[in-house]
Amino acid sequence: MSDVYIIGAGETKFGELWERSLRELAVEAGLKAVENAGIYSRDVQILYGSNSLAGIINGQENIGALISDFSGIAENHIPAIRIEASTASGGAAVRQAQLAIKSGEYDVVMVGGVEKMTDVYGSEILDLTSSVLDREWEAFFGATPAALAAITARKYMTDFNVDKEALAMISVNDHLNASKNPDAQYKNKITVEQAMSSTPVAEPLNLMDCSPITDGAAAIILASEKYVKKNKIDGVKIRSSADAQDYLAVHSRKSIYSLESTRLAGRLALEKAGLKLDDISFVELHDSYSIYGLLELEELGFADHGHAKDLVQDEIKLNGRIPVNPSGGLKAKGNPFGATGVGQFVEAYRQLKNKCGERQVKGAEYAMLHSMAGTGAMSVVHIVGGQ
Amino acid sequence: MSDVYIIGAGETKFGELWERSLRELAVEAGLKAVENAGIYSRDVQILYGSNSLAGIINGQENIGALISDFSGIAENHIPAIRIEASTASGGAAVRQAQLAIKSGEYDVVMVGGVEKMTDVYGSEILDLTSSVLDREWEAFFGATPAALAAITARKYMTDFNVDKEALAMISVNDHLNASKNPDAQYKNKITVEQAMSSTPVAEPLNLMDCSPITDGAAAIILASEKYVKKNKIDGVKIRSSADAQDYLAVHSRKSIYSLESTRLAGRLALEKAGLKLDDISFVELHDSYSIYGLLELEELGFADHGHAKDLVQDEIKLNGRIPVNPSGGLKAKGNPFGATGVGQFVEAYRQLKNKCGERQVKGAEYAMLHSMAGTGAMSVVHIVGGQ
Repeated sequence: MSDVYIIGAGETKFGELWERSLRELAVEAGLKAVENAGIYSRDVQILYGSNSLAGIINGQENIGALISDFSGIAENHIPAIRIEASTASGGAAVRQAQLAIKSGEYDVVMVGGVEKMTDVYGSEILDLTSSVLDREWEAFFGATPAALAAITARKYMTDFNVDKEALAMISVNDHLNASKNPDAQYKNKITVEQAMSSTPVAEPLNLMDCSPITDGAAAIILASEKYVKKNKIDGVKIRSSADAQDYLAVHSRKSIYSLESTRLAGRLALEKAGLKLDDISFVELHDSYSIYGLLELEELGFADHGHAKDLVQDEIKLNGRIPVNPSGGLKAKGNPFGATGVGQFVEAYRQLKNKCGERQVKGAEYAMLHSMAGTGAMSVVHIVGGQ
Repeated sequence: MSDVYIIGAGETKFGELWERSLRELAVEAGLKAVENAGIYSRDVQILYGSNSLAGIINGQENIGALISDFSGIAENHIPAIRIEASTASGGAAVRQAQLAIKSGEYDVVMVGGVEKMTDVYGSEILDLTSSVLDREWEAFFGATPAALAAITARKYMTDFNVDKEALAMISVNDHLNASKNPDAQYKNKITVEQAMSSTPVAEPLNLMDCSPITDGAAAIILASEKYVKKNKIDGVKIRSSADAQDYLAVHSRKSIYSLESTRLAGRLALEKAGLKLDDISFVELHDSYSIYGLLELEELGFADHGHAKDLVQDEIKLNGRIPVNPSGGLKAKGNPFGATGVGQFVEAYRQLKNKCGERQVKGAEYAMLHSMAGTGAMSVVHIVGGQ
């Protein structure tokens, strides 16, 4: 089985990009990745498209074909497949792309994630994003992702005596890092007080606890060991990749705040990489809501249950023990569902190439990337870096 | 690279299954496949879900998680990924599952396809199924799959002097075969006259030229060579697998009736299999509209351009030179988008195991299975059988 390397990465600015279409965004990211890799579009042998909501929002399925067509790759007739695992689509697509390379059938693969979420009027987006939940057993009864995150937070805060400040600190850290990321949706720094006094969304979560509605696209080029050696490319190695599933509906799970899929995928990724948590230089978390930031730190092993609050003051900062979301995370870099997980790889590639300027994690060697579906139905964890 | 074998297959009845839900259908097919393979659900290591429209029709994304959950597999926490390539999702999912086995990471994989299309009122389905087209450049201007098939048929019939009877014969053959398939949506035989005098849908296509709106699910279990040998399973080998892309919108393609993706994928599948067309015992075509049945026979090499009409009287019949759609095809077995391509594998598995009773293709050795996205944006061709 071939090792797999990231050899190029690119993304659009994340944000409310009213004037730009789904396909434009996808193409921009794809071409940037191709250019960054120093290859030609025709060198790409298969395209994995990651997208969650274009069918529902834009009435457009067959996203693989769309991207391939408008990137000018269709003329080469290479296959283009869409991978969907709701908000974990990005991580899942990167994992599938690796399997394709390890199968021996492909040497150069593009993974492109895209989402165009602002094409919907007002609160309708709430119902559309609820498609990542269990439609019949959760969303039908009025549950939304924010509502489920809120009751999870309430129970967690009660059981472990955690206050809202700990949640707010996750967002404060995201905004601080995003202020140094030109691609981020929000570049304003926020204070704990601002976060805690922002508009209530679903108690105890305020606006500043919730990732925004985002348009954006991200793409990476993966290559086999053979290709990298032959062309003397200094790629970033994907050290390990793991995914795990949990029940779709929160009420079926072990407990309301256990993210079993995250725990299992994280453990497996470390095991496959032959690494310890201490080896990880920074982590990109799927903190779609601040509560998940805390829970994920615990499930991934960085803190005991109920104790992520001890990390949020200092340790998660850029120069802390375990920097969290140098990119700005889902809260501040933004959360364009299908592009979010792929965007984590763009950040990791740039960090491990020491190209992140002000937000550079000093001496970064290994990055852990965590992509999660909805409320935790699936998690994909990758460890990238090293030789 | 491991060879890959089909070791079990199952499907629901295809039809207008008003009383059954998306998840029920998926689970029934999955459990039937597991039982047929003689394994336990817990033996499955990864699940590939094939689905096109559940996000749009049922407000449910994350179909992989849904199937995994309700099949009772979620408790094992194995990954579940959705593959989407519109109406080619089935073939695409089976191909991805093979890559997963060839990567060496998995030995037993389930591919489950499902679609629940009757949960929509009246003509709304027309707009929803148009999501497989180019939304902005085709569907927005009023094009539907049927309309595009119709203008394709018109131009083809004119250029090659083909009459409506040739189109009708594709459907007559489908209905005849479906009358012998207990899982088929329509078991009534039709005559050429009935087909040609049925309600006009989009001239020159009548109702009997168009595949129906179908609910249904199909599933297969794939296993590695190692697993098959160790457990002494008499599986059906997947001899080759190939996919190719074309432009998403019909107007961008080489000509209105050239299915370039089908031609390329078919050629590549034969080449990879080391076989000639004469070796193929029967073919399952993606004949969503009768015109595509003719075009596909030509693109796959069974006839020259404009000459598929010479095959439709006798050669495509069950006992003909190249039996087409012993299952009943998309017209009469039915076309539940995400399940259609997987259902072809169910048919092939049963045929090659000599279990098809009245519709058995005598001495069937190799089957060619063709799955196509929309109007031809992508095609996936598999050849199964042999040793």
